[in-house]
Amino acid sequence: MSSETGTGALTETPAATAVFTAVLTEGPLSRVSLARRLGLSSAAVTKAARPLIEMGYLRELAATERTGPGAGRPASPLAVQADREFFVGVKITADELIGVVCDLCTEVRASAHRPLSDPSPGAVLAEVALLVEELLGGPGGFRERTRRLGIAVSGDVDRDGGLVRYSPFLRWRNVPLRERAAEATGLAVTVENDVKALTTAEHWFGEGVGAESFALVTVGTGIGCGLVVNGRLVSGSHGVAGEIGHIGVDANGPDCHCGGRGCVEAIAGTHALVRRSRECTGRAGLTLDEAVALARGGDEDVRAVFARGGTAIGMGIAAVANLVGPARIVVSGEGLAAYDLLGEHIRAGFERQAFGAAVECPLSIRPLPFEQWARGAAAVSIQSLVAL
Amino acid sequence: MSSETGTGALTETPAATAVFTAVLTEGPLSRVSLARRLGLSSAAVTKAARPLIEMGYLRELAATERTGPGAGRPASPLAVQADREFFVGVKITADELIGVVCDLCTEVRASAHRPLSDPSPGAVLAEVALLVEELLGGPGGFRERTRRLGIAVSGDVDRDGGLVRYSPFLRWRNVPLRERAAEATGLAVTVENDVKALTTAEHWFGEGVGAESFALVTVGTGIGCGLVVNGRLVSGSHGVAGEIGHIGVDANGPDCHCGGRGCVEAIAGTHALVRRSRECTGRAGLTLDEAVALARGGDEDVRAVFARGGTAIGMGIAAVANLVGPARIVVSGEGLAAYDLLGEHIRAGFERQAFGAAVECPLSIRPLPFEQWARGAAAVSIQSLVAL
Repeated sequence: MSSETGTGALTETPAATAVFTAVLTEGPLSRVSLARRLGLSSAAVTKAARPLIEMGYLRELAATERTGPGAGRPASPLAVQADREFFVGVKITADELIGVVCDLCTEVRASAHRPLSDPSPGAVLAEVALLVEELLGGPGGFRERTRRLGIAVSGDVDRDGGLVRYSPFLRWRNVPLRERAAEATGLAVTVENDVKALTTAEHWFGEGVGAESFALVTVGTGIGCGLVVNGRLVSGSHGVAGEIGHIGVDANGPDCHCGGRGCVEAIAGTHALVRRSRECTGRAGLTLDEAVALARGGDEDVRAVFARGGTAIGMGIAAVANLVGPARIVVSGEGLAAYDLLGEHIRAGFERQAFGAAVECPLSIRPLPFEQWARGAAAVSIQSLVAL
Repeated sequence: MSSETGTGALTETPAATAVFTAVLTEGPLSRVSLARRLGLSSAAVTKAARPLIEMGYLRELAATERTGPGAGRPASPLAVQADREFFVGVKITADELIGVVCDLCTEVRASAHRPLSDPSPGAVLAEVALLVEELLGGPGGFRERTRRLGIAVSGDVDRDGGLVRYSPFLRWRNVPLRERAAEATGLAVTVENDVKALTTAEHWFGEGVGAESFALVTVGTGIGCGLVVNGRLVSGSHGVAGEIGHIGVDANGPDCHCGGRGCVEAIAGTHALVRRSRECTGRAGLTLDEAVALARGGDEDVRAVFARGGTAIGMGIAAVANLVGPARIVVSGEGLAAYDLLGEHIRAGFERQAFGAAVECPLSIRPLPFEQWARGAAAVSIQSLVAL
């Protein structure tokens, strides 16, 4: 067991990890129901929980039941002590940092934003340090019980190595973000791909709790996908997973910044939609908002750009359904501001390309405030308490 | 615990399932190492193993170590009793049945083939009954200890419901194969998609043992993919998974029998390769072998057909790598007879479309005798011993 003031994982055995995770995500739970669902003996549950109670991460609620022949042993449900520790989560976008402080149950206790004018790693890290200072030095009094920081970045992130291998929108390659952010902030840092972080938040603390499989597709500048399969987030053996934006859906389609061709993102990402709208209108300075307005006003050419984009997204979602068969798929992201232009084509592309019963997979759409991305980063930091 | 002569699962608790599965796939294993790897107490392992030993499915090897303070308790490794029960596996193709008898360790003890002239369910079931009779009535004396039959079919199979929802090559829709095959043979039947069955055999008894993630891609008349993610076969919440053949890789490509467009299979499946070779040569009766011969002889148009097919397969494999990031991908199947024509394009399509570090995922190619498909069906039947 790591020392109470260290920043390693709190759990050292599979049983302790299973117990802590279950209480964290689905608690309060009695020792009896923990034992049943985890296939452990009651003694094993008690042994696993004891140090977590001693360290103050779990607490016993009032006894509500007594079990079996050992009527002298109360079966008090175990719950998380939400304010035992706080966690900073930061989402880095190309032009802004969004930060939150969350408690152990990912409830957001404070939030702050900082604009970014320079996306170079050094400049971003200086701003991250200022953002953390603003969040922890504020009136909430979080500093004393905050030791961990989660950072979410789009692109190819090696979580275990703490490395941003490639983030196209920041133009970063091989940035050792974990180490540099730890130096800049004094906190223990976990780095994760932003979509995976958001999916972790949904899986541990949101709609995905208890789901054996689900997918979260984010539509915007990038088009990403977080996947939970067989009850766990898919991380990818080589550090890449959920890259729905780089599935090739058009063998003769446009080249993508990734080196691929006809990628979903090269057809349906914000930059692609804007570029093609400029081409077909001849208006070189056209913005996304203007393109959306033209399409809504009935410009058939611009409408076709969004239609093609929606179809590409739907084909990518069908690939997810055909390959891994999630129980359901949530589609979200800032790109859904144009949902009226994309939605029917997303659905049609999905329905055309979903194989057999895969078409029964429900697609649901819900808004996603940007702060939720930062909460996802905090969730990843909370996860670092547990040896996965 | 089910009765010894019943055909339900042998294991009723998560612990029993975990112990039996671990010994079946990775045994012999001592109780100590079982406890360690499964996060169970030694007492829980002993309790879980006892009925399996009593029923003769597990046996204790000679004690090789004694552990801990309780030096009076031997820690004999547990092993599977391979000939405790035998299992029939049958693969149904459009023109042939392939059958095997396997022991509990999926060693093939007998095999037989029967040609199929009529792919209707009734005719196929009559032939399945004859095949089973031939296998079990033979000199091996298997009948007495054989109670289970696994059947592997291509297409959309609902394993839990025992239903073949759609098998394009057999032209079956909604055939309750489990029930009808049980009536025809008197055995307890498990029905599974053929590629999933093969992947199960690899995962439980082959190269995939212990792998957290891998993919098996089969190239032939159909193009399929079995996926193991987070240590378990992906079954798909709606019964569909691994349908790499129906990922759309060409938005303007040919229509597919599934209703999709530009599916990998509609470009690279055997039928598609033959059809397009006929189109570009003007030879209406051209066979696959003749098309391969023309391409090998340097016919540029036919070579281009195979090149386009290989590229489509590579793009599909890249989609698998980008989405789930397997540790490695095995490519196999009867279509690889034309590997010299497809291979470089499979690889090039994969490398172009794999995102970032996903390109590091090794692709390996190995032959796959048709009998292995039937062994996969038997493996699925063995799996039905275990409550998954």
